Amino acid sequence: MAETLPSRMKAVAIAEPGGPRVLKVEKRPLPQPGQGEILIKVRAAGVNRPDVLQRKGAYPPPPGASDLPGLEVSGIVAAVGEGVQRWRIGAEVCALTPGGGYAEYVAVHESQALPIPHGFTFTEAAALPETFFTVWHNVFERGGLKPGETLLVHGGSSGIGTTAIQLATVLGSKVIATAGSAEKCAACTKLGAVRAVNYRTEDFVAAVKEETGGKGVEVILDMVGGDYVGRNYQAAAVDGRIVQIATQAGAVASADFARLMVKRLTHTGSTLRPRTIEIKAAIAAALEANAWPLLAERRIAPVMDMIFPLKDAWRAHERMEEGEHIGKIVLDVE
Amino acid sequence: MAETLPSRMKAVAIAEPGGPRVLKVEKRPLPQPGQGEILIKVRAAGVNRPDVLQRKGAYPPPPGASDLPGLEVSGIVAAVGEGVQRWRIGAEVCALTPGGGYAEYVAVHESQALPIPHGFTFTEAAALPETFFTVWHNVFERGGLKPGETLLVHGGSSGIGTTAIQLATVLGSKVIATAGSAEKCAACTKLGAVRAVNYRTEDFVAAVKEETGGKGVEVILDMVGGDYVGRNYQAAAVDGRIVQIATQAGAVASADFARLMVKRLTHTGSTLRPRTIEIKAAIAAALEANAWPLLAERRIAPVMDMIFPLKDAWRAHERMEEGEHIGKIVLDVE
Repeated sequence: MAETLPSRMKAVAIAEPGGPRVLKVEKRPLPQPGQGEILIKVRAAGVNRPDVLQRKGAYPPPPGASDLPGLEVSGIVAAVGEGVQRWRIGAEVCALTPGGGYAEYVAVHESQALPIPHGFTFTEAAALPETFFTVWHNVFERGGLKPGETLLVHGGSSGIGTTAIQLATVLGSKVIATAGSAEKCAACTKLGAVRAVNYRTEDFVAAVKEETGGKGVEVILDMVGGDYVGRNYQAAAVDGRIVQIATQAGAVASADFARLMVKRLTHTGSTLRPRTIEIKAAIAAALEANAWPLLAERRIAPVMDMIFPLKDAWRAHERMEEGEHIGKIVLDVE
Repeated sequence: MAETLPSRMKAVAIAEPGGPRVLKVEKRPLPQPGQGEILIKVRAAGVNRPDVLQRKGAYPPPPGASDLPGLEVSGIVAAVGEGVQRWRIGAEVCALTPGGGYAEYVAVHESQALPIPHGFTFTEAAALPETFFTVWHNVFERGGLKPGETLLVHGGSSGIGTTAIQLATVLGSKVIATAGSAEKCAACTKLGAVRAVNYRTEDFVAAVKEETGGKGVEVILDMVGGDYVGRNYQAAAVDGRIVQIATQAGAVASADFARLMVKRLTHTGSTLRPRTIEIKAAIAAALEANAWPLLAERRIAPVMDMIFPLKDAWRAHERMEEGEHIGKIVLDVE
């Protein structure tokens, strides 16, 4: 089958740093799968906030990575590099990519790919890798959320948020979410959150105290930063863990570090893209064991916002920047 | 022997919140050892910064604890409560106390006492518990310092600092310390620090970068807070751990939380006094296994600053507040 591959492909590139319209369809040479890599014929690609930052020039790709945006795809294995063990040509997979997902083909290390959960469409499957890798690592591995504990999820209606609410709920935790409208709050409670706080009208610290009998929450997943940091320290329980995965409201902020100390909080964080292949492979293995069965049983599923054709990637970015979406925005690459 | 105990004892009490002179000798009833507790006839009592804060009214004792200052002692077991397993009357011990160390007698749970290391005087032994419990838990348990890693210790010439430098060095780490004078810096390097940074004349972030080839330090033990928090984030290596044990320069401060996230730092902290008996017993057991043999071999030893008689506790507090001390200040209770 490898002989039937074209030499060039369509891809969406960032013509120059700027607004959504700098995303342009270009012809690019087909990526070549290297040692241990598979070439995926992309069927759908997830859109994520780091793609928007990259488009604006604020998040340059790591050295050696594709200059094309796109951190997750689903599709069909079209070729395999040397030493590939698990996947054969024709396998249907979804995968984390090192960039380059907004394209007809992308090469990824085979360990970054997972089978498409039973009964899932390609567009649904493309919505999984970024949020599931991020939530699993940050909430469960880094934050150590345990059954019976309470999780506070900021940005509860985002792709990350909707995944965190579902996974934590089904694994036995109580979830409190924050979101910016009544509609978004309704989406959060529908997914299992015991309480959704509209941050435009209600103080999440007071709501958390009320919901936990004054005790606070054991784990907080935060992509907001800014003044949320100090307020997270207030909302956290003794021995609580706060995991920072973005700082959308500002990176530099003030907080009370005596509170962090006296409550023995742990404030940590991470970003997914620069992690090693090995770390991502370990997260993939944990997901396949712990989350994939829940997907196959449809006990959890990605919340799909809108699907755009690849050539309209700029519209997908507009949608994300407007902030009205609930769940995942995906590009259809057929 | 228990029959020979007096009914009353001398103790140093805080007459009212205020300066060093509010420390007054009083007569108090002898404490009664409860279930699992031993009564120690105090021979020496360590002086710690929380005692100063308590004297000023800024650090009230936890509910149920003695109102007398003093968090560590050495002495001789004078009576045992019901259910005590390990200690017999006459045993020589040093112990963490729940307060009340500035006195002729104090009752502590038997699990908070350790044998006096071979060859140590009572005054030396009284200088051990607070700093060793604090350093062990925060640097090794909470901070997870491993051999081969580099530790940055702020306040390197304090009781905590001198203990951290020695323990980390002898257990295979490289230590960088900060201190406020050339004399204090010399004390730090004498104890094993590969570099001591006089914070009045040199930027510790630049010094750390220079000393680690730009990589930063794996663990930071900080009792300063204030603008040190943001600078600690700069000085830390990727995956670094920062442990806050005080905020002497201010609790509320600004920091760059995108740096915490991108470097995957872990910022945590703790205070010793409010921990449970069980947690302190576990730390005691770890110390007896890991640090006590090093003390018995004199590979490490407390750095003794000055010894004052119990009645002059106010002078010991003056000494600590002047900030000229290097190592531990101890009260002699004979």
